[in-house]
Amino acid sequence: MSPVTVDDVETAAERVADTDIVQRTPVERSRSLSERCGADVRLKMEHLQRTGSFKTRGAYNAISRAVEGSEGREGSDEPAVERVVAASAGNHAQGVALAAADAGIDATIVMPEAAPAAKIEATRAYGASVVLRGNAFPEAMAHAQTLVDDPGTRFVHAFDDPDVVAGQGTLGLEVIEQVPDVDAVLVPVGGGGLAGGVATAVKARSPETRVIGVQTEGASTLSESLAAGELVAREEPDTIADGIATGGLSDLTFGLLDEHLDAAVVVSDDDVANAILLLLERAKQMVEGAGATAAAALLNDDAVDELDLTGETVVPLLCGGNIDVTTLKEVVTHALVDRHQLIELAVRIDDTPGTMGEISTLIGGERANIRTVRHERSRPDLPVGDADLVFEVETNGPAHVDRVLRAVREAGYEVEWTTQEG
Amino acid sequence: MSPVTVDDVETAAERVADTDIVQRTPVERSRSLSERCGADVRLKMEHLQRTGSFKTRGAYNAISRAVEGSEGREGSDEPAVERVVAASAGNHAQGVALAAADAGIDATIVMPEAAPAAKIEATRAYGASVVLRGNAFPEAMAHAQTLVDDPGTRFVHAFDDPDVVAGQGTLGLEVIEQVPDVDAVLVPVGGGGLAGGVATAVKARSPETRVIGVQTEGASTLSESLAAGELVAREEPDTIADGIATGGLSDLTFGLLDEHLDAAVVVSDDDVANAILLLLERAKQMVEGAGATAAAALLNDDAVDELDLTGETVVPLLCGGNIDVTTLKEVVTHALVDRHQLIELAVRIDDTPGTMGEISTLIGGERANIRTVRHERSRPDLPVGDADLVFEVETNGPAHVDRVLRAVREAGYEVEWTTQEG
Repeated sequence: MSPVTVDDVETAAERVADTDIVQRTPVERSRSLSERCGADVRLKMEHLQRTGSFKTRGAYNAISRAVEGSEGREGSDEPAVERVVAASAGNHAQGVALAAADAGIDATIVMPEAAPAAKIEATRAYGASVVLRGNAFPEAMAHAQTLVDDPGTRFVHAFDDPDVVAGQGTLGLEVIEQVPDVDAVLVPVGGGGLAGGVATAVKARSPETRVIGVQTEGASTLSESLAAGELVAREEPDTIADGIATGGLSDLTFGLLDEHLDAAVVVSDDDVANAILLLLERAKQMVEGAGATAAAALLNDDAVDELDLTGETVVPLLCGGNIDVTTLKEVVTHALVDRHQLIELAVRIDDTPGTMGEISTLIGGERANIRTVRHERSRPDLPVGDADLVFEVETNGPAHVDRVLRAVREAGYEVEWTTQEG
Repeated sequence: MSPVTVDDVETAAERVADTDIVQRTPVERSRSLSERCGADVRLKMEHLQRTGSFKTRGAYNAISRAVEGSEGREGSDEPAVERVVAASAGNHAQGVALAAADAGIDATIVMPEAAPAAKIEATRAYGASVVLRGNAFPEAMAHAQTLVDDPGTRFVHAFDDPDVVAGQGTLGLEVIEQVPDVDAVLVPVGGGGLAGGVATAVKARSPETRVIGVQTEGASTLSESLAAGELVAREEPDTIADGIATGGLSDLTFGLLDEHLDAAVVVSDDDVANAILLLLERAKQMVEGAGATAAAALLNDDAVDELDLTGETVVPLLCGGNIDVTTLKEVVTHALVDRHQLIELAVRIDDTPGTMGEISTLIGGERANIRTVRHERSRPDLPVGDADLVFEVETNGPAHVDRVLRAVREAGYEVEWTTQEG
């Protein structure tokens, strides 16, 4: 028998229905994504879940079941669970911390020292003890396991745990209740806990609905594992979608996905960045990289063709919204360069006093904002005594760039637009 | 009699209820803002309105009324309205464009050349003709007025128009339906169209509810006008909340606010930036500067005290979400510097080969990311032959900064943290 069944997911759904720790998140139609990919796209807004991700579901189910299991049973063999331990660089930490606080038990979360300060603070704010250990996740995980030394302590793995997987699966049951005619559910895959739970639930209760796993190029292990028929690990995953940058699936989640998943696709980090930006600008929603990965598949023409999604009712799971501000800055800067709203202009000058003032005045006269300026004197093609003045300039877009270039050229300067791409 | 009454707003509410052009937007409780200011804060999510702002309400009401008024009236003096004209640098453009498209009439929108390309494209995408004219808004407005040369053309002003004000007021009726026990509604004030309509509606239907206008320091005219008992204009408004950077109220809106408004407060651009960031990180909502201005008042301790909001049920109107990406980048960069996630370190070196490599390796060894590096050789206190290497470094926060500083110092270098603030 499968280690996680739809009955387990339904039992988990009853548990989470009794609490305000796990909330039923809304589904909203996306006009812009629908137009873009030719499907009827409904966004499952799980980034609005408490703690900002679906991880609260699995953590709540595992912890409340552990506490139920040990409560008030005289003569029971099961000891009372008094404490939970977890290792996480991100969202699982907050989910476990909140669920443990709700259950009234202690939580110790081991996080790598490189975890963003905001995530560490958020975890502490839910009342957990945070231990910082190691530069990367594997060291944090190894240390966490040493902390589970007595029978009253429950280790809560982020995905290699049937109770956690069953909890994540409640998201799948919600989707088929909220969108009964859904043709395809798109699920981001990291360790496979969310995808395993959702696929188990959806394929049992709505067999016609396809469940499709999505990964990014820098962290893909799913297609490889399915093709090989066994777990394929990945040494150093590297992707903007840090929430799914795990080393691979576990035996548990691979088994579930091998049995239930209809398809797997891979998107690029650029697709993910574009999805984050589209969801921000159009849907006005802040979704993190992993949370935008399923929507990214709808911006990738190859994936849309391969999956034959045209005309279907499609639900991408926006599974988290806890983006790191540094990552958000990268996404935004990339978009500005791409739209020619942040450009670099190199103006050849003869390096005499007053020239920078004159050119700056020309650029400012076109209402373009100079962010930085530097002199370059060491380019090999520069005549002696000449220099390039390199301006980083903010504009309103391509037409504005043309006006700025014209103004500088009309004053007799040679200008090169060094960031131009197309 | 007042030029806009609650009956006008209720008639507008009937009009907008009949269309999917104007949507009923949700209200969501904000745990983080509630904790922060000690009130029960419910966010009115009007940034999720179609076109991304409340402007759709007023534009729809004015245009559908103009079309109704002229339709099929044989022998009527009122000519058929066949075309609308508007001037706007932002959200009003999109509202008018969408409402005109829905009514099946032409729209010509004059925008300043400095308008962000994204807003121009969005307006065109709704089917309007966009005319770019002038560097700033007053020139665009002057040109728009020259285009209204025949009786079949209706000029739709962004706020100085009773039908537009009545349409914006429907937002106030929605709030008191959705939150019947609301103690205070916080409204951003630019030209006063939204505030005038909302105050008219709320004070008539729920007199106990206070309506409070909020402006930013760089564009405040409301308190000044109320104190003077007459319109006070502002030559060059300058604020991150560009949507409310108008020159001031109109006679129409000043009259409504003087009659109905309970209080007016002013917040700083820093408050607005903090509100944008809090709404992004905690509520996962993308709200523009003007849209975050009401929430900003809840982050300003002086305003919370002055308004005596503690314990009250408070609804800030998040009235728009169309932020310019350049502004978003500024908000995010400011937050990174503030949280010590983006720092500058000046390391004193003797300018010999290999030094930059050694220091970069030390910083990288602590898993901090170097964004840029430059040499400074012209500081007056530098001994001959020495230089400062200035690194712009990304970290995870204060504790990470300490580790980086320690590593560089232990290797024998003198380091100055040049962006440190506190």
